[in-house]
Amino acid sequence: MAIQITGTGSYIPKSIEKNKDFHNHEFLNADGTHIDHPNEVIVEKFKAITGIAERRYADEQLVASDLGFLAAQKALDNANIDPESIDYIICAHNFGDVKYNTVQSDILPCLASRIKHRLRIKNPKCVAYDILFGCPGWLEGVIQAQAFIRAGMAKRCLVIGAETLSRVVDKHDRDSMIYSDGAGASIVEFTDSDSGILAHESASFTYDEAYYLYFGNSNNKELCPDTRYIKMHGRKIYEFALTNVAQAMKDCLDKSGADITEVKKILIHQANEKMDDAIVKRFYRLHKAKAPEDIMPMSIHKLGNSSVATVPTLFDLIRNNKLDQHQINKGDVIIFASVGAGMHINAIVYRY
Amino acid sequence: MAIQITGTGSYIPKSIEKNKDFHNHEFLNADGTHIDHPNEVIVEKFKAITGIAERRYADEQLVASDLGFLAAQKALDNANIDPESIDYIICAHNFGDVKYNTVQSDILPCLASRIKHRLRIKNPKCVAYDILFGCPGWLEGVIQAQAFIRAGMAKRCLVIGAETLSRVVDKHDRDSMIYSDGAGASIVEFTDSDSGILAHESASFTYDEAYYLYFGNSNNKELCPDTRYIKMHGRKIYEFALTNVAQAMKDCLDKSGADITEVKKILIHQANEKMDDAIVKRFYRLHKAKAPEDIMPMSIHKLGNSSVATVPTLFDLIRNNKLDQHQINKGDVIIFASVGAGMHINAIVYRY
Repeated sequence: MAIQITGTGSYIPKSIEKNKDFHNHEFLNADGTHIDHPNEVIVEKFKAITGIAERRYADEQLVASDLGFLAAQKALDNANIDPESIDYIICAHNFGDVKYNTVQSDILPCLASRIKHRLRIKNPKCVAYDILFGCPGWLEGVIQAQAFIRAGMAKRCLVIGAETLSRVVDKHDRDSMIYSDGAGASIVEFTDSDSGILAHESASFTYDEAYYLYFGNSNNKELCPDTRYIKMHGRKIYEFALTNVAQAMKDCLDKSGADITEVKKILIHQANEKMDDAIVKRFYRLHKAKAPEDIMPMSIHKLGNSSVATVPTLFDLIRNNKLDQHQINKGDVIIFASVGAGMHINAIVYRY
Repeated sequence: MAIQITGTGSYIPKSIEKNKDFHNHEFLNADGTHIDHPNEVIVEKFKAITGIAERRYADEQLVASDLGFLAAQKALDNANIDPESIDYIICAHNFGDVKYNTVQSDILPCLASRIKHRLRIKNPKCVAYDILFGCPGWLEGVIQAQAFIRAGMAKRCLVIGAETLSRVVDKHDRDSMIYSDGAGASIVEFTDSDSGILAHESASFTYDEAYYLYFGNSNNKELCPDTRYIKMHGRKIYEFALTNVAQAMKDCLDKSGADITEVKKILIHQANEKMDDAIVKRFYRLHKAKAPEDIMPMSIHKLGNSSVATVPTLFDLIRNNKLDQHQINKGDVIIFASVGAGMHINAIVYRY
């Protein structure tokens, strides 16, 4: 028995927002004061840390569930299965459908219902729900699909991550340059293969960390105080993630029984290149080993941080030979890992 | 082995909104035209159909996650367990935290994270996530908790439903009188008892039904078109629920192996008294039986429809001898059932 990802799909919006497109933004400090550097310097410094050169924004007429639908359709095609055979549709996101130039999240009905509706699936026994779990939502959806399969409640699940962070950014906050839009999807199912999920790890750190990412006011104090945006305590997140993501990955690998030398790729949430680099280095240090070259495929340079969409999109790009020279071969052990608002962390060790 | 609800709690807001408090509202038809009846007549007709005489609104300074926290604390006390022993916190809702007199849903971080933070639980292995599944969200959370337990991923879960529908109603819509605020919580855990969940049933009807409940504009066309509210196609929902909830309950009872004569109480989502009556009558008709007196405890008259909170609150009230003369005794078979936005339906047959 195995629980395998048998199909993947992603939707990458066409519209490219380059770093230079931020040159005319009015960036402010959190206290509303002006920043003593020209935007060109701010943007360069931003790129040096995060690795982000450009990001994608969804077309104005699309919302997150549209992106999710487009990715889901590709995953279904890729797995080449009958959509009516799906037992669960799990959709991860953080803000629901936010129409362009509006401030309300629309989550009624849930996005999984909208996507199922657009996929024209009739079977009412296909249960469609949304999970809110920060950026690790898609990976947690895979873990939940695994639970339903193990519990005998499902054989085949469609897990989607869809997000339009461009709709909830504070344009006066430098961190707005991080965020991006996108969607990724995958089919998770019971098979008799010898590949599949070897182990998983999930955690929620809320005692001190619950509000490291939060919904807060603009840095521009003249804007409406009732309108809030995605906000983060970047420094705290960096330190938190460095310790705890590396440890979760180690715990997961230990549980899996696979050896560190078998690990061929680490697909980590695309939040910040320097942070991801540091996490992977620390992970190898915990195993008294050195991180191999090319262990960590990155899409952040061109796609930014699309939250729940980064990991499934990365996986889909590699499977389709669309990410540099990265390849995953049958039998390879790969690690998925993510961290985000909550603060939640998770990881899956997977034999491809 | 059994999966049992070992503790319950609920939070019922103190502030009572009576039907007469709507006498001065300006009710409009969906097309914006005036309604040709005085409000007194509208309100009386409303009461005759739904059974609702009054409903509860959360205090202005509270949001949904506060209500959820208060209910969760009571459930923990009732089960008399160490909060650090919880493996999952699952919070169901439909609109997140909406501050009084604002229009944005705040779901970053997810409400389960906020509640875990306020419960001062340190254990990071206690995974906290939100589920969006319409009004049946709490019941679906129980079904998911069951999956985690069956899959060997958890032993003890805290499942919460929390909602402040008063924050998302269109005051110009008669349906606004239905909605209420509240929270219910329960501890679901693995025990060696002979009581517990006997069977469950879940379904998502999205082909035609996805938008029977939706986020839409005010009936007052002069209000901002970007601001949306909870809206429903009441007649369609009524007909849909009548057929499909009764059938889901029957399918669930059939699966459970329990006999219709063993069923002592049906705890059904408090959406509309006439509809709930009709569903239960049809359920018995499907079994060629007659609905016993007092089979269906109702809280709707005084508490309105608080979405995800109705079923766990009902259960908690009965367990605490606070709902008329209703009692549940050891060995009784009870049915939980719900229906709501999605459109989702679920049911659990449970031996108390």
